[in-house]
Order: sequence, then C-alpha cells, then structure tokens
Amino acid sequence: MIQRFYPPRRILMGPGPSDISPYVLQALSRPTIGHLDPLFIGMMDEVKTLLKYAFQTENEFTIPVSAPGSAGMEACFVNLLEPGDKVIVCRNGVFGERMRENAIRCGAQVVLVDDEWGQPVSVDKVQVAFEQNPDVKVLAFVHAETSTGALSDAQALAKVAKQFNALTIVDAVTSLGGVPLKVDEWGLDAVYSGSQKCLSCVPGLSPITFSPKAIERIQARTTPVQSWFLDQSLVLGYWNGGAKRSYHHTAPVNSLYALHESLLALHEEGLENAWQRHADMHQQLKVGLEALGFRFVVDEACRLPQLNSVYLPEGVDDGAVRASLLDNYNLEVGGGLGALAGKVWRIGLMGYSAKQENVALCLKALQQTLTQ
Amino acid sequence: MIQRFYPPRRILMGPGPSDISPYVLQALSRPTIGHLDPLFIGMMDEVKTLLKYAFQTENEFTIPVSAPGSAGMEACFVNLLEPGDKVIVCRNGVFGERMRENAIRCGAQVVLVDDEWGQPVSVDKVQVAFEQNPDVKVLAFVHAETSTGALSDAQALAKVAKQFNALTIVDAVTSLGGVPLKVDEWGLDAVYSGSQKCLSCVPGLSPITFSPKAIERIQARTTPVQSWFLDQSLVLGYWNGGAKRSYHHTAPVNSLYALHESLLALHEEGLENAWQRHADMHQQLKVGLEALGFRFVVDEACRLPQLNSVYLPEGVDDGAVRASLLDNYNLEVGGGLGALAGKVWRIGLMGYSAKQENVALCLKALQQTLTQ
Repeated sequence: MIQRFYPPRRILMGPGPSDISPYVLQALSRPTIGHLDPLFIGMMDEVKTLLKYAFQTENEFTIPVSAPGSAGMEACFVNLLEPGDKVIVCRNGVFGERMRENAIRCGAQVVLVDDEWGQPVSVDKVQVAFEQNPDVKVLAFVHAETSTGALSDAQALAKVAKQFNALTIVDAVTSLGGVPLKVDEWGLDAVYSGSQKCLSCVPGLSPITFSPKAIERIQARTTPVQSWFLDQSLVLGYWNGGAKRSYHHTAPVNSLYALHESLLALHEEGLENAWQRHADMHQQLKVGLEALGFRFVVDEACRLPQLNSVYLPEGVDDGAVRASLLDNYNLEVGGGLGALAGKVWRIGLMGYSAKQENVALCLKALQQTLTQ
Repeated sequence: MIQRFYPPRRILMGPGPSDISPYVLQALSRPTIGHLDPLFIGMMDEVKTLLKYAFQTENEFTIPVSAPGSAGMEACFVNLLEPGDKVIVCRNGVFGERMRENAIRCGAQVVLVDDEWGQPVSVDKVQVAFEQNPDVKVLAFVHAETSTGALSDAQALAKVAKQFNALTIVDAVTSLGGVPLKVDEWGLDAVYSGSQKCLSCVPGLSPITFSPKAIERIQARTTPVQSWFLDQSLVLGYWNGGAKRSYHHTAPVNSLYALHESLLALHEEGLENAWQRHADMHQQLKVGLEALGFRFVVDEACRLPQLNSVYLPEGVDDGAVRASLLDNYNLEVGGGLGALAGKVWRIGLMGYSAKQENVALCLKALQQTLTQ
C-alpha cells in the first residue's frame, strides 16, 4: 500500500538541486492559474526582465525553457546548427561530452578540443582549432563544468570565436548567479542554465538567452529545427507575443512562480553581492576541508567557489561516508561523475546553500564522521 | 519595481490546467531533496506503480517525461520512427496536425487520414490507408482531441494497426483519468499524456508508457534518436536503474511530489469512479448549457465528458464574456483553438475540476453574464 510521501528536510550541498528557501517553496504552492491568464502573462514578462538582469543582457529573447538544463542545452544546439555545419566542441568534463553528443545528433561536423578533467578550456587550443578550421560556425564550451568544478574564461573564448565570425554556445548551468557571467559585455550568443543551481529554484526549468545574431542565424535556417518542442521560432510567439500570445505548450505555471520568486531574491540581494557571498563561503569551506585532509581537484585560479571538487583522503569509503552524512546529519554532498566517480566528492555551495551555517555543519559533520 | 506575485484563486474550467487540490499543492511545496537520494528513488518507483494503474498497463517502461505533453508527444515520435519510415497520422484537430509536424521532423513519410474537426477518427479510412500502404510502420492518432472534444475509438484503431503489424502512438493527454483508457487490453504501444488535465497535477510533466514491442523497436534502431534529452534508451537507465541508477538529467523533484500525490488520490477514488464522476458532471453541465442556448460541437456518441466544446449562442462576444467571467467570478473557460477560435468555447470538467459546485457556479455565472 503506497503512502503519502513526506520527504525529510535535507541540507543540499551537492551539485544541485541546491537548498531552496521557504519563500520559494511557498511561491511554488500558490494557486495555479491558466497559462493564458492575463495575470500570468504579466508575470511571465517580469520573469523575462529578472532573467535579463541575472544574465546581464538586453537580449529580447531571454526565457526559461519548460524543461531541465539538458533540454536547454539541446535547444541551443538544434536551433543554431544545421546538418553539415562545423562546430568546435570543447571537452573538459561530462558536459562538454554531452555537447558533442548533441552536436552529432544535429548532423553537425564536430571538431573536438580536449582538455584534462579539472582544467579549464585552453584558449590557445581553441585559437589553433579555428585557424585549422576557419569555416567553423559555432564554438561550444562549458563556462562552469559541474562535473569537475573548473571555470573557463568565457570572455576570452568568445573573443576568439568573434575573430572567426562564429557564434558561441555556452553552458552556464552552474555559473549563473554564482560567479560573474556577463552575456552582453562578453558577447556570448546562446547561453543556457538551470533553475536548480545558484538560482536555488526547483529543478525543471532551463533559463536561456539568445543574442540578436543567434536569432538571425535561426531565422536564416534552410532546414526546419529537428525538435518541435524546442523550436524557438515557435516558442517566441508564446513568450514574446504580448497580448496576442499564441499557444505553444502549457507552461509549467507553478514552477514559474518559484522562478519568479527566486529571481526576485537574487535581484534584491544584488548579483555582485551574491557572487561575493559564494566566494566568501568557499574560502571558509576550503580552509576547513584542507585541514581535514581533502585536496582540491582544480587549481585555485580557475576554481568554482560554488562547486568544490575534492579528492577523498586516503582510506575514506566514498559511498559509506556519504550515506552516513545523509542518514545522521541529513546532509547531502555529491559524488564524482564519469571518470571521477568514486575518487572525488563535489561539495556544493550554490545559491541559498551558500551560507555560514551550512559550511559549519558540513565541516563538523565531516570531522565527526571521518574520525569515528 | 517588480513585486512578489500573488495569483488569485481561479476556478479552472478550461482545457487545462485544471483545478489542483490543496493537498497536491501542499505536496508540491514539501522540502526538495536530491534527485539521487535513496528516498527520492523509492518515491519514483511508487510513481511508476501508480502510473501503471492509471494507464491500466503492466508495461515496465511507464514514467513521467520531465517536460510538458508536447515533449511526451515528441518522445514517442523520435524514439519509434527512423528517417524514411512510413507513418499514418490521423488528423481531426490541432493535435493531429502537431503529430504530423513531429513525424515530418523525424524524416518520416506521412500518410494523412483527415476527418472533420469535431468528428472522431474514422476507423474505415484508417483501414483503407493501411490497405493502400501495407508498409506503414506506425499509426498515430489522438484518443481525446483537446481542440474539439471528440473521443476516438482507440481500441478499434489499434486493432487495425495490429492487422498490419504496425505500432500505435496514442495521444491520451486529455483522456487519462477522465474516460476509459486501457493500454494493455486495447494493445496500445506508445501512449503519452499530460499532468495538468484529468490528473489535476501541476503542468510540466508528461506521463508516457511504452509496450514491450515499442521497446523492441527502439532497441532495434539503426540510427540514433535525434533528441538527446528525449532518447528513452538513456532515460531508461535513470528510471529503471534501481539502486544503480545512472544520472541522465536532474528530475523535477517537487513536481514529482505533486504527481505522486495526485496519482494517489486517483488510486484512492478508483479509476472507474473517476470516469463515472466525469460522466455525471458532464450530464449536469450539458442540461444547463443547452438551456442557455449552447449547442455542442461533438455528437453525444463520441463526446468527451471532460471537455465540452460548444458553439457560442448568437450575439455572444467571445473575448468580452470570457474576460467578464474571469474578472467577476474568477472563472476560466477556454476559447477555441485553430479553426474553431472565436466560434466555440471549451469548458473543461477535468479531474478535481469535475465537481458539482463548479458546474453550479459555471451555469449561474454564465446565466448572469449572458442576460446582463
């Protein structure tokens, strides 16, 4: 007999979802209204405005895709690429590899630029790849690799792409709201993120923004976008239609209430303050983790403060210790992904999770568990 | 300056989203836990069990896609079709046309079977189409056309497909939970639905079920599924992986709490009772609407009780009256879609919306508004 499900209150310090504030959960459960209700349409316009602030962009096309970050990634690839197009994909972790898979399924020709896991994308290698393939149409890279905790120099990479008149697709799933991300100043073209990382909203939405050049590229396509659901020329009529909004799909109304609330909180705190808070909490966590014998995967110069990838001290049993933290402290930290599975932990300090009480709890719980 | 968003409490009697019970909204706002948390994985297994009951199937592959019904539709087409495959698409409303668009984007050859809007799909025409095209691999049709309110005979259509050894793709977005739908008994192969209709859950999820034959077809593919996000062979590892669950995408944790709760309510009421309740409420609404001068679009024999498409009485201004109902009674009824826009209303009695107090309010509000 199946019972009602009452989840425990966990402290979420993994790679996402991050902790969600009670105010966002409260917004989530407000009464559902119709997705074409004039009041809902007004709220959608506010979500767009707040997302533009978070992305630091004036791009008119800035919306949340009604599906998780993987769908946001796919939306960028299927709209910007046509069969036969050449694309440089930078691969320094799980999500670079996923970009490659997306590009191939679009029928694109992929030029790979590989860097070691834990390293940022090499700007020099990308420069060389463009020189050898000047007909490349798109450069795709991950700003903040969630599988390793490495931050790449999106501004420098976008500059190289511009030299060769290529567009950029940028994975900002883990960076948005946690470290500086300046879409317009850096000249990024198609950027996607997730709701459940540094925005501390419920999982299931993928904010994206397309530059005017990206929109031009979409409008100049000679083949239809292979996905109907993710065809942004159709979605435009819904999100940008104003009073004459056309029906595309039923928007996830309640999740959008939550996104509105979490973006409002970010706006009230101020982006710069949020970035600083993530940096400060990282410093505190770092000192404590190193004292416990953890060693960071990523060099300090390109380390994400919101995603701390650390090698386990010798003799620590990955699964057993994480299970113990969950069972005894309701504390979730993340395991390694792909090649790093079993070798590292990923300790998140994302959004609402990035606060002093969480750092303190995490360090004390680790100390008690590891010295048992 | 953007303020917090407090939606009014509407009574939702359009084509979806339907009214959501306070218990489901409460479940939605329970604390978020990790998508790989053992407790969450246990809940996902329960969601599968409850969905199997709702679909009346033993199909092992029965899960909610982490995106709206349009993505569920696309999941069926991109997984079952390969470029060049021949598919019969039945078109008797907006969603049949959307099926055609999906099939074309998969590179399939489409054989169209057209019926008038408001009519069910003609079983005879489908039989003829198969006779003329015995190499058809898939028959795609809409069980309950949300744009017109017509119910087609899914059992008879599936029988024809079986004669010709073809699989079926069935749109059950509006039928699931509202009228009989018996996936196994009728031999349906790939069926998708939506969370926001007769299940009365929040919008944003798309329950799907694939028969063993559909899974065989997917496993025998010679080309990759064009969508990474919707490639069900990858998703299988997440939903059916048990303790060794592999990461695919971050599940929409809170929306799945709500789905669990709404499916539990359906299970407690009993499917047959839910079907009867929809039929009973339709009878009450029908008598009242006809007394007010409304005429039904669809013949009684194939009319959906949960979606009442009615022609407006002469002289009634579509937009003005619907706006007045919304402003003065917080009552939402739906407008026409596609060819029926401006000519009909779609009055929904879906899931939690299908109750006596809603029927009474709707009839009285209409009477007062139309006789002003």
